[in-house]
Amino acid sequence: MITRPPAEIGMPVEEIDTPALLLDLEAFERNLQRMASAIADTPIRLRPHAKTHKCPVIALRQIAHGAVGVCCQKVSEAEAMVYGGVTDVLISNEVVGTPKLHRLASLARQARVMVCVDDPGNITDLNEVALAYKIRLSVLVEVNVGANRCGVEPGEPVLQLVQHITQLPGLRFAGLQAYHGAAQHIRDFVQRLEAIQSAVEKVDHTLDLLQRHGFSCPIISGGGTGTYRFEAESQVYTELQAGSYIFMDMDYSRNLDVEGKPWQDFEQSLFVYTTVMSRPTPDRAVVDAGLKALSVDAGMPGVYQREDLEYVRASDEHGKLVVHDPDCTLRVGDKIRLIPGHCDPTVNLYDWYIGIRGDRVEAIWPITARGAVL
Amino acid sequence: MITRPPAEIGMPVEEIDTPALLLDLEAFERNLQRMASAIADTPIRLRPHAKTHKCPVIALRQIAHGAVGVCCQKVSEAEAMVYGGVTDVLISNEVVGTPKLHRLASLARQARVMVCVDDPGNITDLNEVALAYKIRLSVLVEVNVGANRCGVEPGEPVLQLVQHITQLPGLRFAGLQAYHGAAQHIRDFVQRLEAIQSAVEKVDHTLDLLQRHGFSCPIISGGGTGTYRFEAESQVYTELQAGSYIFMDMDYSRNLDVEGKPWQDFEQSLFVYTTVMSRPTPDRAVVDAGLKALSVDAGMPGVYQREDLEYVRASDEHGKLVVHDPDCTLRVGDKIRLIPGHCDPTVNLYDWYIGIRGDRVEAIWPITARGAVL
Repeated sequence: MITRPPAEIGMPVEEIDTPALLLDLEAFERNLQRMASAIADTPIRLRPHAKTHKCPVIALRQIAHGAVGVCCQKVSEAEAMVYGGVTDVLISNEVVGTPKLHRLASLARQARVMVCVDDPGNITDLNEVALAYKIRLSVLVEVNVGANRCGVEPGEPVLQLVQHITQLPGLRFAGLQAYHGAAQHIRDFVQRLEAIQSAVEKVDHTLDLLQRHGFSCPIISGGGTGTYRFEAESQVYTELQAGSYIFMDMDYSRNLDVEGKPWQDFEQSLFVYTTVMSRPTPDRAVVDAGLKALSVDAGMPGVYQREDLEYVRASDEHGKLVVHDPDCTLRVGDKIRLIPGHCDPTVNLYDWYIGIRGDRVEAIWPITARGAVL
Repeated sequence: MITRPPAEIGMPVEEIDTPALLLDLEAFERNLQRMASAIADTPIRLRPHAKTHKCPVIALRQIAHGAVGVCCQKVSEAEAMVYGGVTDVLISNEVVGTPKLHRLASLARQARVMVCVDDPGNITDLNEVALAYKIRLSVLVEVNVGANRCGVEPGEPVLQLVQHITQLPGLRFAGLQAYHGAAQHIRDFVQRLEAIQSAVEKVDHTLDLLQRHGFSCPIISGGGTGTYRFEAESQVYTELQAGSYIFMDMDYSRNLDVEGKPWQDFEQSLFVYTTVMSRPTPDRAVVDAGLKALSVDAGMPGVYQREDLEYVRASDEHGKLVVHDPDCTLRVGDKIRLIPGHCDPTVNLYDWYIGIRGDRVEAIWPITARGAVL
């Protein structure tokens, strides 16, 4: 049930079996460095999201570049990180149900683990399990700052939950989660900035209210790859959750910078390597990477450095390409790189990163938290 | 890297941790029986597609209900089936590249394994590896009967490949693959029928040509869950590749029958079980099953037996539901069943089926070929 790696260390890139998830290590390392440099002069600390990579090896690289720990979305993801050597995890999500609450409390005995809340009943449950495990669990109240997903409304509803939390001996109020997911892919720079300015105002207003009631907020967590500079410079956010910056994808490549040009703070390091398995007509090629090799929720993948090829349709195990150049010599057996439409759910389809440097395979890293949905 | 099962055998259904892939065993067994009955009076034999379930336990149930073997899309999927006890596999796809050709030939020494071809160079490669492994490999020529994906055009192009194959000592010409994937989800009954009638004509015309040149075609393979009756009654097709009939999904539920009513040859047996993790406003609920728990390539999942709830948006680990009834009592911690938009890529996200009968967990089956893309 664990798939075999499609490559061996030292192998030339063109011998990698396909479909394979390639990580260009030089581009990845440059992305790590760029983020560290970009926020070096701001007060924000980076706590990158491990839901993107699901790999403790990568988490530890991020921490070596200054990250204070990682975010996770699931307890099982957090377990994979802690057992892989990460000592500080924020579960940037609500955790519900007895089995998960026990695992959360157990994990919080083994590492620093924080969790988000937005419901009084869930807060009560967390307190009970924390007491049973003899821990004091740090919780962040999730605030809806515009994504309209989880989280209570800013202001009074946050205060009510904080008052509840601070009366419970098993819990410690650690701050707010104010992540604006919907803002990450607003294409226009100014509109994207305005969405975060609006979020900052909501947080500010809530912080004022909490302060008037004597509550301090050590952590204000939020920010994704699309908006990280805005949160970093906000003077309000203290932690940044960005995850995709290490890999990038087609979706993020559609964001625009302040001048209306393609936004290029980071570069593409993640690819799906695929083989042409059928070349039935001059204008059509079929590759071996379909819905089970890449996620199409954010649209079709791009074809890397091939303007003459367009990936137009994914079925379960096939990708259909239109060949725009009638003289294209693409043949059965040729291999090309695809740029995933959306990196996070694409990574979740694989057990291994094939790390390449130049034309050789240098590293094969396990995607330890692949499928960790619990 | 293998996830833990989210349940234990004997557990009440409502205690299953989420997200979980539920299989209603009674509905599944009725679907197995319905397909067997539906084709019992036709000459066609069922070779169901294992790309749907990726589970040898299910493959063996299908064989116990009369299937002659299974189809697979990948060599790694075929390996999982053969090592799980299946002795007859058609790889209903082209296999390209040295590592896969070796594994294919090796597997063909261990079980009956057939493969599809649509390219002269690939045929030459297959012959060479077959000779190296001292086997004679059965191949089907894939014909494009309307899906415009892989496969050569009907008629003369097929004849040319057959002439090539029959000159090679390592290969045996076993017949044609004429699968019309694009027809499966044509909603209108008559249009769906006409698509298959057109495919049948193309196959007929090709068979005539081959017969005039002295070539017989023992196998004509095709047909999916959406069109299986048409191929079964065609007097041309000999094997049926339908896979989804055991599970069903939202996509197939949109097909119409001859009277324009929802088509109901089979019933929904596969569900994603999910927990309400946030209930921030009266009209909104958030569940713990998003893009990593279900595939949205064919649209959003349905909510089973809950007309008052609508799953409107999937993000990586969240599903956003609109609550249409303002008096709805849905609470954090409540569990509901989702009907996957598309069963095959949803199954590929999980390591385990949680088989339920009535209100109890009866079986936990490994999805052995989960992630088998090579």
